[in-house]
Amino acid sequence: MRLAIVGLGTVGAGVIKLLQENEALIARRSGRPIQVVAISARDRGRDRGVDLSSYEWVDDMGSLAARDDIDVIVELIGGADGPALTLARQSLAHGKPFVTANKAMIAHHGLGLAREAERVDVALKYEAAVAGGVPVIKGLREGAAANRIERVYGILNGTCNFILSTMEKEGRDFDAVLKDAQAKGYAEADPGFDIDGIDAAHKLSILASLCFGTEIDFGSVDITGIRHVVAADIREAETLGYRIRLIGMAECDEEGHNLGLFQRVHPTLVPVDHPLAHVGGALNAVVADGNFVGRLFFQGAGAGAGPTASAVVADIIDVARDEYGPAFAMPAEWLQRQTKADPGQRVERNYIRLRVKDQPGVLAEITAAMRDGGVSIESLIQRSAGESDGVLLAIVTHATAHARIADSLQRIIGSDSLLDQPMVMHILD
Amino acid sequence: MRLAIVGLGTVGAGVIKLLQENEALIARRSGRPIQVVAISARDRGRDRGVDLSSYEWVDDMGSLAARDDIDVIVELIGGADGPALTLARQSLAHGKPFVTANKAMIAHHGLGLAREAERVDVALKYEAAVAGGVPVIKGLREGAAANRIERVYGILNGTCNFILSTMEKEGRDFDAVLKDAQAKGYAEADPGFDIDGIDAAHKLSILASLCFGTEIDFGSVDITGIRHVVAADIREAETLGYRIRLIGMAECDEEGHNLGLFQRVHPTLVPVDHPLAHVGGALNAVVADGNFVGRLFFQGAGAGAGPTASAVVADIIDVARDEYGPAFAMPAEWLQRQTKADPGQRVERNYIRLRVKDQPGVLAEITAAMRDGGVSIESLIQRSAGESDGVLLAIVTHATAHARIADSLQRIIGSDSLLDQPMVMHILD
Repeated sequence: MRLAIVGLGTVGAGVIKLLQENEALIARRSGRPIQVVAISARDRGRDRGVDLSSYEWVDDMGSLAARDDIDVIVELIGGADGPALTLARQSLAHGKPFVTANKAMIAHHGLGLAREAERVDVALKYEAAVAGGVPVIKGLREGAAANRIERVYGILNGTCNFILSTMEKEGRDFDAVLKDAQAKGYAEADPGFDIDGIDAAHKLSILASLCFGTEIDFGSVDITGIRHVVAADIREAETLGYRIRLIGMAECDEEGHNLGLFQRVHPTLVPVDHPLAHVGGALNAVVADGNFVGRLFFQGAGAGAGPTASAVVADIIDVARDEYGPAFAMPAEWLQRQTKADPGQRVERNYIRLRVKDQPGVLAEITAAMRDGGVSIESLIQRSAGESDGVLLAIVTHATAHARIADSLQRIIGSDSLLDQPMVMHILD
Repeated sequence: MRLAIVGLGTVGAGVIKLLQENEALIARRSGRPIQVVAISARDRGRDRGVDLSSYEWVDDMGSLAARDDIDVIVELIGGADGPALTLARQSLAHGKPFVTANKAMIAHHGLGLAREAERVDVALKYEAAVAGGVPVIKGLREGAAANRIERVYGILNGTCNFILSTMEKEGRDFDAVLKDAQAKGYAEADPGFDIDGIDAAHKLSILASLCFGTEIDFGSVDITGIRHVVAADIREAETLGYRIRLIGMAECDEEGHNLGLFQRVHPTLVPVDHPLAHVGGALNAVVADGNFVGRLFFQGAGAGAGPTASAVVADIIDVARDEYGPAFAMPAEWLQRQTKADPGQRVERNYIRLRVKDQPGVLAEITAAMRDGGVSIESLIQRSAGESDGVLLAIVTHATAHARIADSLQRIIGSDSLLDQPMVMHILD
């Protein structure tokens, strides 16, 4: 089977290296040899640390889809739109199987691409788009296929998990740890995509579609990143028996209660006895609750050249074996459009952290606001805020609709007693 | 697609229940309706808690394979040989896809059945045979297919894990916890298959074949069960920073060093920061180390009607989707026969527990034997053995070839100082 590989950054070079190093083994598992015919990228001159001399370099990637000597197009450019999307459409229009690691493109255009792939009856594969090397697309699309999935959630961004688990280990604050992570290459120079939760939201919207049989709806994901998590939150969470992780979570009511599709990426307190609490460093992990299988847990490297290449080549092997089907587990036309669930109605326990003035009456003011908003307090820790001024309040609420939390906080926003914005994090049950 | 389901015990009834309850969803994900045409089991009269009235009851299961109105045979009888094997051979001989949950049969006859399935070009599927509901066969066969797998290991028997983690939690001894587990249905009345490690060894031999491209070799698995793990071992392990799990581990040297195939099921000390240390209760978990993907970790329910049915029906859906290929990831004729690695040559750290007389000179005798056998001691804890007589010695060795441990122990076997058999457990690195 003859490939064109487009995009030769970290992942592209990793795929080439993997295809070279494991060539014999991949041919055995594919049932036939896999051969790279053509490669294409922006900058021909760059040294990528792999030997590219035996492949034809193609400047015009637009010419690849039409070539008879290419069986599969592998897209590793990235970006939701632009050249990646153009290539995807060309590839499918010419009836060529298309393999990609591009989460942004699948999150934004996956539905349309799936329709087109099914129309021409070729594979559209994207295992590497979610959780890097962890075969979670396959695990959910096929391994858990017999189940109604009630909830899918997990740690979907390695950069955030690296930062949070380093903050946890070293007791340092977000900014310092981010700087370190950037120096070590665990975070991009422009880290917003990761730390603001966009990347995790892309992946979550893909998982949700796959698990619930709904049309991908990236636009309805509620997203909060980890910029405002402070070292004190991690300490208080630990005292309470939790660790903080950026959790992407999706739920969908298939039972006809019309609650809609709930999708949220948010820093979350995870009980220490939950497997996600033990996912450290840059790892990714996904949990799916099925109505027969119970809780499935998948963990592994969520990024990096080797793991991502592993997922890309797994897709290529599936295509070689002719083991593929509809991209989202069922024909795209059967996927249902779901309304967005009202996140205000979700009932759960929450952690609220407030930094307040150290003066009489403040605690009464805060607790009165909670009472008036209808929020019942399960526990409250008050501590000196340390070097900075004021007092830190860490509140755990009983299970409450989120709208009530918002109502309570609305009552104190603008108060002189507050020294900065309250931070609300959900507690995983 | 029309099924015959043979065997209506816990799993068979679970499969029927799942096919009924998730019928619409399964049809969507399969691309076509899945219909049970015929059922067969030994005892027609038994109440199985599911409505069987709409299926044709067949007494002679031998007649099923030849029927034109049946597309797939699902075998849930169990047992390595006998009726299950006969049915498998009939099914394949008639060119009918065959789905099974039968680990013993696959471990003993998987290679021959795979050859036959490939000869007639139909599916042979056995996801439920390993780790119950966890889609680990798929995860390794397909998800990790791009990797040379260097090692595969995990917790493959839920009964043993339930017993060990209960001993850990409650501080009680093996016999008492086993009795409880039997009363609660977590262990069979005749528990040998589980607690002596046979069941885990069946699964391990299947994983090894799949990961290494070797012929299944159940006969070469070194098996030690958990009967001789005592509460004191679990306490000492905890002191040292470990938890005890029954670990099945396989390694194969594909680099041409001719070390052969290493397969072992043995109680093992797992570091508390390893994900396997957090696998509690009746869960199963599998770890695979790939040369590109790194460490993959899969966890979920390893047994029970719902999870096992989930895996069986996932296989059925794969067959309906026409997404299947060689049973062991490559054509059976390409699987290599491997010699058994000499377990005595494996170098690792070990835990040795001895119960000895509380009298002068015993410690000198033991440590001299270790020295003479060439075993270097990393740490040693000596404690009163509690209610029973004697003193408990918990020794951790430096990394040492196992033959040296055996040699050292040989030097003290028969000594008056020993109050019972030494217990050796490996330490997972």
